[in-house]
Amino acid sequence: MCVQQPIAVLDSGVGGLTVVKEVLRQLPREKVIYFGDTARTPYGPRPAEEVVRFTREIVDYLIQYRPKMVVIACNTATAVALEDICSLVDVPVVGVIQPGARAAIGRTQTGVIGVIGTEGTIRSGAYEQVLKELSPHIKVISEACPAFVPLVEKGNFRSAETLQTVHRELDHLRGYQIDTLILGCTHYPFLSDTISEVMGHNVALISSADETAREISAILHDKNKLALNEDLPVHQFLCSGDPRIFKRIAEQWLGEQIELTPVVWQVPQIG
Amino acid sequence: MCVQQPIAVLDSGVGGLTVVKEVLRQLPREKVIYFGDTARTPYGPRPAEEVVRFTREIVDYLIQYRPKMVVIACNTATAVALEDICSLVDVPVVGVIQPGARAAIGRTQTGVIGVIGTEGTIRSGAYEQVLKELSPHIKVISEACPAFVPLVEKGNFRSAETLQTVHRELDHLRGYQIDTLILGCTHYPFLSDTISEVMGHNVALISSADETAREISAILHDKNKLALNEDLPVHQFLCSGDPRIFKRIAEQWLGEQIELTPVVWQVPQIG
Repeated sequence: MCVQQPIAVLDSGVGGLTVVKEVLRQLPREKVIYFGDTARTPYGPRPAEEVVRFTREIVDYLIQYRPKMVVIACNTATAVALEDICSLVDVPVVGVIQPGARAAIGRTQTGVIGVIGTEGTIRSGAYEQVLKELSPHIKVISEACPAFVPLVEKGNFRSAETLQTVHRELDHLRGYQIDTLILGCTHYPFLSDTISEVMGHNVALISSADETAREISAILHDKNKLALNEDLPVHQFLCSGDPRIFKRIAEQWLGEQIELTPVVWQVPQIG
Repeated sequence: MCVQQPIAVLDSGVGGLTVVKEVLRQLPREKVIYFGDTARTPYGPRPAEEVVRFTREIVDYLIQYRPKMVVIACNTATAVALEDICSLVDVPVVGVIQPGARAAIGRTQTGVIGVIGTEGTIRSGAYEQVLKELSPHIKVISEACPAFVPLVEKGNFRSAETLQTVHRELDHLRGYQIDTLILGCTHYPFLSDTISEVMGHNVALISSADETAREISAILHDKNKLALNEDLPVHQFLCSGDPRIFKRIAEQWLGEQIELTPVVWQVPQIG
């Protein structure tokens, strides 16, 4: 039955695991197949055309697993490739920008929302566009934080270097009346303790991860495709780069209760 | 264009206004047409067949406004009539039970979720079923609170009587390890300050209202039907009972910024 098909989740690296963790927690019956393009991470500084091409390659590859849904768990790829991928496949495609934007609008009281993301995401203006489409009077303050993804891909979540980097990137955002900050990159929840320390605990952090998992659940329900299996599914993880680093970060982040099956896939035309 | 069509929201009375308030806040471009069946409230103690019939009558009536979505903003009606209404209309139908259940699963840490609702909702077991379908290991403690809806329909949100009633209905729930309480009736957010006072501030209250508004947004986006109009829409409110009480509660709850157009509609076969 279609409802037993996996949910395909893809990211430039390990960031999309923040979405996977919430999917496993909120939808424990669902099987996930994850692809982290760790050989070509980060996507943030790359030209949009390249990110579109990479995303298409991964979706082309994942489609062989007959997923019932494709989740682009990468803000950069969502910003530039979502529409393209929607036209490529005949299953629902969920990005991470709309869910985060919706949650931020639900949360803000001051109407001033901060957005941090990669250069690619911020340059695209995708969050600002979606936020203003939903609610025209929202004020949006955006900031690219290119130093964050490399920290996370090294597994450097909490250190003096991390704290210093987060201070350097975010300190000036504290001058605005932001009460809600969108972590507009799926890597950033790995750094959320430090980000919260720097921004102050009165600023609500919106993780695309939590919100996207809820939205996946809502859309699968709307389409009558939620999994019904009694046995807990075995998930599958693929990455294009060093499987040891990926495995270490994935196991640390997801916890021991999840059986991991890292598989190396050599992406064509690496670089 | 279809995206400019209204969202039809219905409830047994004023409870669904909690959903409307969040829709207006989160989706200010959307036009809402609301029907409160105040002549026949409460639905909670009525037999399921009767609630199904009433809900069908209202949807039959609202369909003349060519809504792009029908929102059953009443837990009792969602519990017993959602499937029936889905088969009746060819637009998406959103109930309030799934969104609340999803949010509670996203929030709980202990895995013990409380649900309060009308007798009809609790008797149907709908929340327990949805929660366990989503996540089989969740423990659910359910309790009917028949005294709450009449308090709200009278506009009695905060008084000594209200506090006493809430204590009487909820005190024994405090013996469980509940960390998340679903307000499984759209009337209950009117009482949320008092409920929070009685349950303790460590118990997260999940309002169907907030969650349903987010889900409406997600599903309209998925179907490419979010409104794009620049002018703020004028909403339309209908009720089957005394329009003065309805108008007073609606204006108090929604605030002055909303232009209200109460219209009396005499439902056939009242009673």
